[in-house]
Amino acid sequence: MARIQIDKDSTRKDVIIKAAAQLFREKGYKAASMRDLAEKVGVEAASLYNHIRSKTELLHDICFNVATRYMEHMNDVELSSQSAIQKIETLLRFHIHEMLDNHEEVTVSDREWKHLGEPYLSNYHNQRRSYRKRFAALIEDGIHHNEIKKIDAPTAVITILHAVSGIDSWHRSQHKISAEELETNMVSILIDGLSSK
Amino acid sequence: MARIQIDKDSTRKDVIIKAAAQLFREKGYKAASMRDLAEKVGVEAASLYNHIRSKTELLHDICFNVATRYMEHMNDVELSSQSAIQKIETLLRFHIHEMLDNHEEVTVSDREWKHLGEPYLSNYHNQRRSYRKRFAALIEDGIHHNEIKKIDAPTAVITILHAVSGIDSWHRSQHKISAEELETNMVSILIDGLSSK
Repeated sequence: MARIQIDKDSTRKDVIIKAAAQLFREKGYKAASMRDLAEKVGVEAASLYNHIRSKTELLHDICFNVATRYMEHMNDVELSSQSAIQKIETLLRFHIHEMLDNHEEVTVSDREWKHLGEPYLSNYHNQRRSYRKRFAALIEDGIHHNEIKKIDAPTAVITILHAVSGIDSWHRSQHKISAEELETNMVSILIDGLSSK
Repeated sequence: MARIQIDKDSTRKDVIIKAAAQLFREKGYKAASMRDLAEKVGVEAASLYNHIRSKTELLHDICFNVATRYMEHMNDVELSSQSAIQKIETLLRFHIHEMLDNHEEVTVSDREWKHLGEPYLSNYHNQRRSYRKRFAALIEDGIHHNEIKKIDAPTAVITILHAVSGIDSWHRSQHKISAEELETNMVSILIDGLSSK
């Protein structure tokens, strides 16, 4: 019985977090209210508090869900036997999929993480910096092995990560190509742009 | 005398708009107050109203300053005798310079334009769409002339425009390369990524 209770609660919380990510993306974290959230979920504001403690907790969950997935994926990529340029392509495709499948959560974590409270703020900031450094180190490795042309690796990282954030526009565009075509096109532009060939 | 009065007022207004762009970028348009702005400018809140009518007017000025520069530049590029790929490089370098020189205004117009009131909202939205269509048409032209490889032009536009928005990170980074190096690196990645060669 306890088990079922926990699962039910967890699912309900997931629904609330998903709705919060949508709301924070539309309105911005600061401007969004718990009343707005209750309306989106279709419950009374008071009953939200059976599942979550505060608006801040929702932002924490959104940001750390994303950060955890990013860090776990980076661990896998670093340990894989791919070439450096393949690793960069794997990271790029991962970020494209994140923006296709979880774009509200990803966009909110990217835009609103500065509203986290301590100790989460510093922790998240450090993880973000560490992620970008590890990404840059893989690019440096590719330059060293002559797979990637001689570029400034941190600039390449911000170019890639921000280019992918453009998928937010794709979600809103009217005449869209398929997600697969979008991915193929972005990979073609960015990986050819990095390649030493 | 009247002339001097107007010039003085115009300069003061420019200072206020610049401070508003900084404030809106830091806090978000919705969360920023006229009191915050007065503090940033170093005057009493009441005296701001000698120069501007409302917070909304500031957002209008910021967004339409940027839109006017973009549209005028696009007109120039379309009329120039450059090859298609050179035109795309010119546009890319223009956006890089905008993000280097006016990054607060550009970032605010990009993030906060949805808070514009009508008729400005629809007008701005149309200009934004038109700008991206004209950008995509230049890319199509490059594909047609075999200067640019066969890619989906709207995807290339969002890839370029969003990659450039990464310069916001460069402004905040600690170990930064020079603006010239940043530009060279971004152009190298993105133009090589588009080129048919």
